[in-house]
This record gives sequence, C-alpha cells and structure tokens, in this order.
Amino acid sequence: MRKGEQTRAAILEAALDLASRDGLEGLTIGLIAERMQMSKSGVFAHFGSREDLQIAVIQEYHRRFEEEVFLPSLKEPHGLPRLSAMYAGWVKRHTREIDSGCMYISGAVEYDDRPGPIRDELLSMVMAWQKALLRAARQAVKHGHLVPDTDVEQLVFEMRAMVLALHHDARFIGDRHAVDRIDRGYLRLIDSYRTPSSESTPQRRLATADAIEAAR
Amino acid sequence: MRKGEQTRAAILEAALDLASRDGLEGLTIGLIAERMQMSKSGVFAHFGSREDLQIAVIQEYHRRFEEEVFLPSLKEPHGLPRLSAMYAGWVKRHTREIDSGCMYISGAVEYDDRPGPIRDELLSMVMAWQKALLRAARQAVKHGHLVPDTDVEQLVFEMRAMVLALHHDARFIGDRHAVDRIDRGYLRLIDSYRTPSSESTPQRRLATADAIEAAR
Repeated sequence: MRKGEQTRAAILEAALDLASRDGLEGLTIGLIAERMQMSKSGVFAHFGSREDLQIAVIQEYHRRFEEEVFLPSLKEPHGLPRLSAMYAGWVKRHTREIDSGCMYISGAVEYDDRPGPIRDELLSMVMAWQKALLRAARQAVKHGHLVPDTDVEQLVFEMRAMVLALHHDARFIGDRHAVDRIDRGYLRLIDSYRTPSSESTPQRRLATADAIEAAR
Repeated sequence: MRKGEQTRAAILEAALDLASRDGLEGLTIGLIAERMQMSKSGVFAHFGSREDLQIAVIQEYHRRFEEEVFLPSLKEPHGLPRLSAMYAGWVKRHTREIDSGCMYISGAVEYDDRPGPIRDELLSMVMAWQKALLRAARQAVKHGHLVPDTDVEQLVFEMRAMVLALHHDARFIGDRHAVDRIDRGYLRLIDSYRTPSSESTPQRRLATADAIEAAR
C-alpha cells in the first residue's frame, strides 16, 4: 500500500474501534484526529466529511462481517448445511464481539428514528444479510432438507430474533448462557420444519455451543 | 395534588417524552428547563440531580408498563391464559410504542457498556418483568397446560427474542408484518410444549394480531 492508503486504512481502523465503543454517532473527526495524533484537516484529506467517514466505517464493518461469516459458509453444500454454517458463524462472531457489541444492532437503535444516508447504509447492509439467510433457507427447502411448506420468512425472523436476544442478554444482562439457548432454539426451530430424509444431513447439530466454547 | 406535586409530575412527563425520543442519555436538566419554561434551579428543586431525574423516568416508565401490561393479565386464570395475556399485552404495548420505541430495549443498548446506577435501575426493571414471565410459564406447567419437562427458561428466552425482533423490524426496517410473525412464532412455540389436555384452554390463539389490528 502507498503511504496515503496506509494512513486511510489506519484512520478507518481507529474509527471502527471508536464507533464500536461509542456508537456511530459518537464518531467525530476531532476524536479521530486526537486518536491518530493528526490535525483535523489531515483526517478531512482522507474522508471529505464526518458522514463519509461514518459510511466508510459501516462498509468496512460489513466487509469484515462477510469475510468472517458469509464467505466461509459458501464452502458448505447448498441447503441446510449452508444455512446452519451461516448461523453458526454469525453467532460465533457475536460471542467474539460481546465486549464491543454488534454495529448492526446498536446502529439499529441509534438510527431507527434518524432518517438519512447513515441509516440507509446500515439498513442496506442488514437487509443484504437477511436476504442471504432467506436465500439459504429457500435452498434448504428446494433440496428437500426442509418441508415444502416451510415459512422461510418466519424461520429467518425467529433466527434473527434469537441473535438479538443473544446480544441483549450477553451484553446488558451479562448472561453468557444465551449462546446455549440459541443452539437449542435453532435445533427446535429446524426440527419443526425438517423433512424425515434430512435427519442424516451433515450438521444435524448447529454446534454453535461448541464453536463458542472454543472461542471462550 | 398540591402545586409542588403537580409541577414534579409535569417535569416527569416532559422528561419521559424527551427520553423516549432521544434516549435516557439525551436527557439533561437544561433541556427539561427549556421545555418546561422553568429555570434549571426550578427543576433541581424537584430532582436533586440529572441522575435522580433519569432514575425517576425509568421508575415511571416501569409503573406505566406494569399498569398497562402486567396488572390486566392478573384477571386471567393462572397458567397459560395468564402467560398469553402477558405476552399479548406486551406486544400490544410495543405496537403502540413503535414511534417512540421501548425504553427497556433502547436503554439496554445505551447502557450495556456503561455501568452505574442508571444501568442498574434499568436492569432491575427488565429482570422483574422477565421473572414475572418465568413465574407465569412455571404456573402453566404446574397447571398441566404445558408438558412437565418444559424448559421454561428457553420458552421465555424465545418469547423475549421475538419482542426484540418486533422492535427492530418495526422501527428500523419499517416492517409492520413483524406482529403477525410474533403471533405465529408464539403459537408454534407454545404448541411444541402444550399438553394434549390444554387444547381447550382459553386463548388457544394469542390473538396479538387481532389486538394489534384494533390498535392500528
């Protein structure tokens, strides 16, 4: 990387760290300049405005999310194995993020009543992930892993709901058992839609609990 | 009410309104004084500090939550009818609150990384409600409405998860179908734990959807 690109990447890293701690609204050019021991105009040379920086932070967060959660799941076969891998990866990332929190979830509360480009950017990232989950669930139906009349929207709603509860319970209540609850809830959920022939499908168990145990 | 009590109640009302809009951290004595057309020292005469006011707001929010959601459910018989009434009332309150948001949920994200008396107060209110739900679920087992080996902690975790998703989807995504999803999810959840004899229990259907339809 050229020097300019390196500085830009370092600013973005510091901004991501600050936003994870104080929220996207807590991010100011002044704070970043202080953290980077740069002048404010030095920061502005790389990001034209505070809003540009906030949006770049969301995009970088999303890039990492995809790299860590979505891309590895593509190695799994279509259908239920891939859906389970996506979910397990998502839950695992959450357990790693317990101290900083998830930008999609804290961002939703920060921006649910603030229309504008930042909310739009966050929303488009959240919806992209939701669509990927729906697509995987539909594939699981198509491949005969889940029954044909599976309500995939309902399935994904309940999957997402439990991740919100994990974030809430682990961070606010301080209850680390929430991960085991997700594991049980996902199994119960899948079992209620599973076809008899899919019992032998790999990843019968989500094994988030195992993944999480390893991450502890 | 005496004049002083009236003023205190009016300050609390304005503070509750502000906190619903901007979060508990957005609440300042200065803003309240401006809203009330009072001096700051006038506000301080009723609430000794900003923190006292924030805590009073949480307590008032909780009082209203109990009055609206918990107390009416006590008219229902012990067990599943009461548990369903509590849940329906909770969901209904959420649909009324879509524009302002739920202080327990936004507060959890605001304070999950800020220890102190405000977080403690919020947490104790959230836990009180969670315990009430657990108690009702245990009664439903005791009265034979749910199977003896029902994992009540799991049941209540999944119930709470869907309420978090309702708040997220209705406010951030702008999806009002989330209420129908909760209705279906709760039925599926209860059906997986229900005893055959409880089929005739009143409130076979949660009917949140009906309640919500009426509230629209």
